[in-house]
Amino acid sequence: MEFKPIGIVHSPYKSKKDAPIQPRFSGEEAEIEVFEEFAEGLKDIEGFSHIWVLFHFHESEGYDLRTTPYLDDEERGVFACRSPRRPNPIGQSLVKLIGREGNFLRIKGLDMIDATPIIDIKPYVNVFDEDEDVRIGWLEGSVHGGKVARGG
Amino acid sequence: MEFKPIGIVHSPYKSKKDAPIQPRFSGEEAEIEVFEEFAEGLKDIEGFSHIWVLFHFHESEGYDLRTTPYLDDEERGVFACRSPRRPNPIGQSLVKLIGREGNFLRIKGLDMIDATPIIDIKPYVNVFDEDEDVRIGWLEGSVHGGKVARGG
Repeated sequence: MEFKPIGIVHSPYKSKKDAPIQPRFSGEEAEIEVFEEFAEGLKDIEGFSHIWVLFHFHESEGYDLRTTPYLDDEERGVFACRSPRRPNPIGQSLVKLIGREGNFLRIKGLDMIDATPIIDIKPYVNVFDEDEDVRIGWLEGSVHGGKVARGG
Repeated sequence: MEFKPIGIVHSPYKSKKDAPIQPRFSGEEAEIEVFEEFAEGLKDIEGFSHIWVLFHFHESEGYDLRTTPYLDDEERGVFACRSPRRPNPIGQSLVKLIGREGNFLRIKGLDMIDATPIIDIKPYVNVFDEDEDVRIGWLEGSVHGGKVARGG
């Protein structure tokens, strides 16, 4: 499967060590530049308060099937984590859409580093993208034990 | 960017016309077979009630930057829709994880057709993947006007 970037991120985070672990903990703003040839696909996006951004972890090389997550001290399967070192290094982040100017989207709450290639943008639709009775496995202790706070 | 399937879907939907528009409206169960070489990456996934599945719309050919969605009668930008005819034909679905047997995941609430290639699986973590004060643009009328019901 061959995919191509539809845009690129202009982010205040210049390297991995600057970026937050999860975008929801970030109040920083950034821009997504959608390449001119795809700009028409942005019509009506400004009606959505939030968007999904699928992006390429372009600085990630190789993968681990087991990994010890930042928020944990045990090895977990990569598909039970959000680690960038995945068989297919695609990231998926929910960000706030602040506004749009032509082919530039102003976003907030991101973890992408500068020059990250964007693979897709989808509207966030809470009816489709949320559910009830959620259990979050090994993250339960981290989230409810206070290691993670809900971002604003 | 070159990506490879990590697994495949065994679904009761044999073709596009059988599949629901959005997975949340489906009570059907299906299986994801994660290929043996990636099976170790599933460790601990059974602790999560829901997972994200990124998959290839493998029967989709070409794309439209503007499209008239099923739930609407106006042309919208493709990045403001969930249409399969995208520049990079990647789908993103939230499904319930019913259980795991080895490298097979039993899931519920899917829209993927049989033999769909799986690109990635990520845990659904409501702290990261939900937000408040959500506006859903052109979908507002469809969802709250009753064309769409929240799936179970």
